[in-house]
Parts: sequence; structure tokens; C-alpha cells
Amino acid sequence: MSTRDRRSNRRRERREREPAPIAKAVEPLVNKLPLTEVLSEEGVDAIHRASMRLLKDNGILVIDYPPALETFRAHGARVEGELVQIDEETLLHFVQQAPATFTQLARNPSNTLPVGGRNIIFAPVYGPPFVGDLDRGRRQATLDDFQNFAKLTYMAQHLHHAGGTLVEPNDIDLPERHLDMLLAHITLNDKAYMGSVTHADNARDTVTMTEILFGAEAIRQNPGVISLINASSPLRFDDRMFGALEVYAHARQAVIVTPFIIAGAMSPSTMAATLAQQNAEALFGICYAQMLNPGTPCIYGSFLANIDMKSGAPCFGTPENALALYAGAQMARHYKLPYRSGGNFTASRIPDAQAGYESAGTIWPTVQAGVNFVLHAAGWLEGGLITGYEKFILDLEMCGMMARYVNGIGLSDEDFAWDAYAEVEPGGHFLGAQHTMRHYTTAFYQHTVFSMDNYEKWEEEGSHDSYRRANKIWKQMLKEYEAPPLDEAIAAELNTFVEHRRAEIRAGQPRAEWKS
Amino acid sequence: MSTRDRRSNRRRERREREPAPIAKAVEPLVNKLPLTEVLSEEGVDAIHRASMRLLKDNGILVIDYPPALETFRAHGARVEGELVQIDEETLLHFVQQAPATFTQLARNPSNTLPVGGRNIIFAPVYGPPFVGDLDRGRRQATLDDFQNFAKLTYMAQHLHHAGGTLVEPNDIDLPERHLDMLLAHITLNDKAYMGSVTHADNARDTVTMTEILFGAEAIRQNPGVISLINASSPLRFDDRMFGALEVYAHARQAVIVTPFIIAGAMSPSTMAATLAQQNAEALFGICYAQMLNPGTPCIYGSFLANIDMKSGAPCFGTPENALALYAGAQMARHYKLPYRSGGNFTASRIPDAQAGYESAGTIWPTVQAGVNFVLHAAGWLEGGLITGYEKFILDLEMCGMMARYVNGIGLSDEDFAWDAYAEVEPGGHFLGAQHTMRHYTTAFYQHTVFSMDNYEKWEEEGSHDSYRRANKIWKQMLKEYEAPPLDEAIAAELNTFVEHRRAEIRAGQPRAEWKS
Repeated sequence: MSTRDRRSNRRRERREREPAPIAKAVEPLVNKLPLTEVLSEEGVDAIHRASMRLLKDNGILVIDYPPALETFRAHGARVEGELVQIDEETLLHFVQQAPATFTQLARNPSNTLPVGGRNIIFAPVYGPPFVGDLDRGRRQATLDDFQNFAKLTYMAQHLHHAGGTLVEPNDIDLPERHLDMLLAHITLNDKAYMGSVTHADNARDTVTMTEILFGAEAIRQNPGVISLINASSPLRFDDRMFGALEVYAHARQAVIVTPFIIAGAMSPSTMAATLAQQNAEALFGICYAQMLNPGTPCIYGSFLANIDMKSGAPCFGTPENALALYAGAQMARHYKLPYRSGGNFTASRIPDAQAGYESAGTIWPTVQAGVNFVLHAAGWLEGGLITGYEKFILDLEMCGMMARYVNGIGLSDEDFAWDAYAEVEPGGHFLGAQHTMRHYTTAFYQHTVFSMDNYEKWEEEGSHDSYRRANKIWKQMLKEYEAPPLDEAIAAELNTFVEHRRAEIRAGQPRAEWKS
Repeated sequence: MSTRDRRSNRRRERREREPAPIAKAVEPLVNKLPLTEVLSEEGVDAIHRASMRLLKDNGILVIDYPPALETFRAHGARVEGELVQIDEETLLHFVQQAPATFTQLARNPSNTLPVGGRNIIFAPVYGPPFVGDLDRGRRQATLDDFQNFAKLTYMAQHLHHAGGTLVEPNDIDLPERHLDMLLAHITLNDKAYMGSVTHADNARDTVTMTEILFGAEAIRQNPGVISLINASSPLRFDDRMFGALEVYAHARQAVIVTPFIIAGAMSPSTMAATLAQQNAEALFGICYAQMLNPGTPCIYGSFLANIDMKSGAPCFGTPENALALYAGAQMARHYKLPYRSGGNFTASRIPDAQAGYESAGTIWPTVQAGVNFVLHAAGWLEGGLITGYEKFILDLEMCGMMARYVNGIGLSDEDFAWDAYAEVEPGGHFLGAQHTMRHYTTAFYQHTVFSMDNYEKWEEEGSHDSYRRANKIWKQMLKEYEAPPLDEAIAAELNTFVEHRRAEIRAGQPRAEWKS
């Protein structure tokens, strides 16, 4: 028995002794409804063929990362300088080795997540350098903010996943920031989480911490972390992202390969071309992961906005965004890959009406398209520059509604309410009927922050708009937060590792392999 | 040649001499995308069968209107007291006589509207007693407000229809209010409009004014007015609505038969039962119109919200609303009838984030469901109690986006932008590409009131949220409004009629037949 296996056994025993987690486990979300599609079969095929032409004739640039060029050459691609050209047969041979579904571990076993198929996972916003709230406006985010959002995510019934870079903790030095973020995800939350992609060593740290938490063997069976590998569009990947991808693929941890495209700038302004380019980039990254380690769990990612031709800023919640979201889902299904896209997007800087229209105009298509992994499901403002405290709370309302929507319409005898019609005469009132009494607590979605109060009551209570009501809620949640219990030995080992790595980083020493 | 025909000829000649209308004609909206469905074929059939059972076993109450009871009895229904029970065969025999599509006339011939099939018509909010704006909050609506919204509707590029009761003009006596509303629609706008349903005589006035405008013969060929006939749910119609319906059916003018249901109060709290009841009520009203005059253009209507079990208020933009909206569309298609539903609904009292989320959460499903006639597409606040000036402007942004969305994704060679990929290297930038230059003015939806500005620019310009930006826009629009020219003889005859009827009403005299 290896050291790792022994550690894993110890861990298993410890987990069995652990008290039940305090926080209510997330309910997995399964979309039972027919999906919305915007492309015919011929349309899917046309985009497929265009992307194959891009990959074969135009190629993908892989910059500053010779090992990837070697890998592609060794597996049948044509490499000239940093340009990789690959034909359809070779590409699909590898892409087909990615699993159609997989499972991501969470430290609360009830929060373990199925990825792919009809499953939907909501994860919070990823990446903003700023935070914003009603009291203090926009400001640089700190580790405090990061920890706040980790706590809010833990408490959010309708977020299934802890996410990744909830905000950039700008008060922590860049080279060690990932350690604090991972520690927060693991200790303040018990949901599945995302890894660091800012450097191959940071990816290694992510894997080590995930091994400490779950055991090295366990995460080879089912990934313990999922990470976001962005293309540097158009038709380009870089050393940072492919370096991290390589670490994760070798450790068999899941990756989301996402072309990051603002159409009109990083792609042509037409949707067909943009979708073909996105398809080429996503498949290229997934192909690379499969060349490195066949069977590596991969998600076909899409982040596709369009440019505002007046200001140059990205637009969200637009008809073009929705069309791309649906079409992207069809492409991912065509290759039998899980799909990441969507969220509660807005270009607005505060949670005003615009933010509401745009966010709902993204999250509805997201769910109807059949997206499996919904990053940015809560908190997104100003095109992803701000994580908004109130926006986070408001978006959760939408996530809750979506959790109801995907169940569709029940058609049992009880659903047809025959006894209610026997009880209530034509022209009567169903409020007091026995059938209504049986169903009234569960019949309809019950709102948290949206208010149905009439004008008089609303005015009496201070005429608060939803921005102000949300402000109250996140403060109350942070007050009520209690950390989920974590095995002390694991917590100690994680802290020891983080302090060790922090010391290494500060001393400018190379990363040494960690042995527990 | 009858007097009416002579009048009609005169009118035709006059129209030929008229100058071209100043306002840009509305562009008809055709949904080219696959529709979203939430019910299987078996589901549609189950709801159909349940509604047939309701109609046969429970029946529909028709109160205070013996003529309708007579009509139903004469056409094969079972009538006992005020309760009408009808079997499937009899009902469908009549329902099938309603046309699947029809055309509504507008005084600007370019604004004539196809109803049904894949066509979408956006009409403004209908019915609120209050108006609201940023400057003055909520207050009783007046004729001034009505005229303002008639003007804004005329100027709104993405509204195809003038609508009906834009607000209740509470400063005008109830018995003559309909005259002022019709006059405003006809003189301040040149789009198709809706008629009065508050009394059979008011329906007659509507028909007379529409005959003056288009000619009596012309509106027998294609309806010149469309009117909203609500059921008094559950399973009940009244004399007011059926009286108006009778006038319109005899004049072969179009009607929208709409069960008005807040589920949990006017129907059971389960969606299957609510949909079956809605189906029974809508088909019953349409059946009545066909019994009166086979071939009368009818729309299958749905206004279906659900009750907030905490406050008793109606909820909008909920998952239940969306499911019902989609399912209702499937039912209407099952009977080959045009469908009315949806809009930009919210329970919120002001256009805050909640209003945005809820409105977008209705208008997206509305368009994706294949709704043909979208009442309440702009201006709706507080569950329909308020017509909001700013909300109107914000909703227009959504209507504009929908007009782009329904076109789907182009798949021509030009759409695949091959010359752009020849011009731009991997890692390059498409902003300056020839292909982008060719498309940049039309590539993406361009916003009117939503702002893509970054935080700095937005702060510099006063940190205005979308509520405040919309406030500026409606004021500017009212300043710029110019009435579309109307033939002077028609205008004079309309005014004469209205003054004549006003005198009759004020004197308490019975309505005399109008002769021009």
C-alpha cells in the first residue's frame, strides 16, 4: 500500500466519523424539458465543417509552449513554427476519448456533482477585480471579499458549486493568491470547487491540496477539482493556459476549455463564423487534453459576447448572445461533450433594471439550451469587472426559479385537481379548496428578494427597490454564516502545505514535491 | 350601391390622394426559429381531454345574458339555468370554423398586420388605472396620459399595434371614456388598434368609428379592430363580455378570448388543472363567436399568473408563468388558432432590477413559445396596475432585441467570413477587417436605453441608472412627436360622431344607429 493509499484510507475513516454537515446539501438540478434549439441539423453540420476547415487550413497558434507543439506533432498534427494544423480525423479521434459525463467530488459527499447529460450546475461569478455594493460603490476586491463570497456561496441553496476566482484578492501578492483562494473554498464551503490556472505550479498546488482533501487515489477515479482553460482567441492558446491544462490532464482533473470571444473583435461580427471559430478552439483544447491523457474529463466551454459597435464594450443579454448560447449547446451535444456557457450576465454597473433584463435574458436561454456547467450564475456586474454583493443575492432568485422551471408540468390525476372542481362551483374561488390546502406550500416558487407587495405596503415600508432589499439580505447571511466542520487533521495538513508553499514562493525557491 | 358602399368608395379615393405617412412603418416580425415546447404530444392530449371533461361535466356559467344561453341551446349545448355544458364534438365543430390566420387593417396600409402562423405582434400595456414615472411616482391616470402613451406607441419602432386601454383616463366619465380612447388611437397613431368591451353599446361605437375610418365593406373582408374578451374565471363569462363579443362577431371583427387566471385563486394551484381550465374557457368563448358568425377571426388568449401564497398578490416572470405560457401556445397550435399571451410582466412597482428580471423572464418565453399577439409588451408595472413611462421605454429595448432574435443565425458563405480569416492571422484582431467594416452597422443589436459605458464614464456622466436614462428618453420622444396625417373628411366625421354620441350618453338617450 502506497503512502497515498494509506492517507486515503485514513481519510475515509475520518470522514465516516465526521458529524453530518450542517448546511443543507444542494439539490442536483436535472432538466426534464425539451431543449430549445436554433440550428437545423444542416446548420450544425455547416458549423462543424467550417471549424474543421479553420483547424486544417488556418490552424491554431500555440505560443511560448514548445512541449505542446511536440505533443501535437507526435500525435499526427502538422506543426510549423508555433502554428498547429490538424485534420478532422485526427482531431475527432482524440476528442471522442473525452467522457460524455463525469462526476466531480465535493468534501460534503452529498454535494458531489454529476456533470453532463441533463444535469445543470450553478457556480458563482469568476474573475472580477472589483467588488461593488450599495453602501460603498465599486472598489478593489480583497481577500475579505473573497471569503465573504465563499461564505455566501456556501449558504446559497441554489448554487451547486463553490466556483473559483470569486473576486481577485488584490491585497494578497499575486504569486501566492491562489493558496488563499483554495484555502477559503475548502475551509469555508463544502461544495465542489475550481482550481488555479495562473501558472503550472499553481495548478500543481491545486492538485496537491485536492489530494490532501480527498486522497490521491480518489481524485484519479473522479476529479476533485475543475479548472477553466481559456483560449486566447482568435485561434490561439498560450503557455500559461496550456501549462495548467497539462498539469490537470496528467492528474486526471477536469478542465473547461473555453474560447473567450467578444464577437466583432476576437472573431468576425457574424455569428456563423464566430461559432465555427469557437468550435475549432474548444475542440483543439479538448483534443490536447486527450492527447496528454485519454479520458481526461473535459467540458466544451463557451464565453461569447458581442462588441458594442459604438463604445467597443462587450454587450450581454443580447439576441446574438442567446443565439450563440443555444447554437453552442447544439455543437457540444454533437460531440457528446458536457457544455459550459451562460450565467446572469449584464453590462450594467449596478443592479438596475438593465441588469435585470440582461441577466434574465441570459439565464433563461442558459437553462433552456441545456447548459451543464453555468459559471457566473450569481454576482456578475459590468461585463465581469465587478462582483456585486446585491447582484449576487438577486441572481440567486433566478437560480431558484430555474430549479423549479426544469421540472416542467406534472400531469398526474392529482395535478388535474378533479376534487377541486368537484368542490368549487363555476365562478367560485379555489383559495380555500382542499386541493389548494394540500399544495399551497409547494405549488409555486416562493421569492426571497423579489417583492409582490402592493404599492401602499411597499411605500409604507420605505419604497425600497430590489437593490436595497438585497443589501439587507447579504448582510444578514454573513451574520448567520457558520463554517461547515472540516476534519482537523486535513485542516492542519492543508495549512502546513500552504505555509510551506508560501515560504517557498516568498524565498523564490522552486516548487518541491509535497509529501505528507 | 348602398350608402355604406358609397362611403367606402369615397374613402378609397381619399386614401389614394393622401400623402405617404411620415412615421416609419412597423416591420412585421416573423419567428424563423424552432419553437420551445414543454409538453409532449401526450401532454397536449391529456390537457385537451381534461378540458373536454370540464366542459361536458362541470360546464361554464354564463351570467346575466340569456341571449347567449339561447344561442348555445340552439346549437346543441345542454343548458340548465345559466350553466352551459357542451360535448367535445359540438364544441370542436364550431371551434374549427375560426380561421388559422387573418389580417387586421391599419389606417397606414403599411401597418396592416398578419395575425397567426409565425407572425408576432407587439402591443402596449392594457388596462392600468394608474401611471407612474420617476418624477411624480404613482398617480391616477388621465386622458392626457392616455394620449401620451398613444403618441409614444406611434413612435415606438418595435410596437406593431396601437393597443387598447393604454391607461384608464379617470378624468373622463366612464360612459364616454371609450370615445376619447378610440379617437386618440385613430388620430394620434396610424397602427391597428383595439376596441371597447365595457358595454355592447361601446362595442357598437367602436365598430361605427372603425367603419368611418376604413369603410363598412372593407372591415367585413379584414377586421379593422380587435377586442379583448375576458372570461370571468373560473368557468364563467358575463353579460358585459359576451354582449361585446356578440356585437363584434356579428360585425366580423376580431376577438381575443382570454381566460384571466391567477392560479391558486381563480384556478387550482397545479398547472395541469389551470391549463385545462384555461383551455376550456378559451375554446368556449371561441365556440360562441363561431356559433354567432362562423369564420369570425378569434385569438386563443392566455393571461395566466400565479398567486403569491404569502401575500395573495399575483406573481410574474415566474417558472410557473413560463411553463404555462409555453404549454398554452402548444394548446392553441393544437386547435390551429392564433395565440395571445405574455408581455413584459412584473409585480414590481418601479422599474428596478426585479422588474427587469421578471419582464425579461416573460418576454423571452413569449417569443420562444410562438405567441402571435403580445399584449402588454411595453409599460406594465405592479401586476398591471401601473403604466410606467420609464418602464415603457425600457420594455421597448426588449422588443427591439426580440426583433433581432427571431431571425436566427445566417449560414451563408458571407456569414462564415472566410475573407476575414484570410485577412486576420491567428491571435489577431477583427475590428479593422474588411468583413467587419462591411457588417459593423448591422451586425449586432444596437441599444437605445441600455448603456454599455464603463464605470468611469458612467460615473462621470452622473451615475444614472436605467430608470433615469429612460426618463430622459420618453420626455424627448413626446417633444418630437408629430401626428400622422389623417384625411380631413374622416377626421371631421369621427368628431361629429363622437360629439353626437357624447350628447346621447349625457342625455341618457338610447344609442341611435349612425348614418353618415
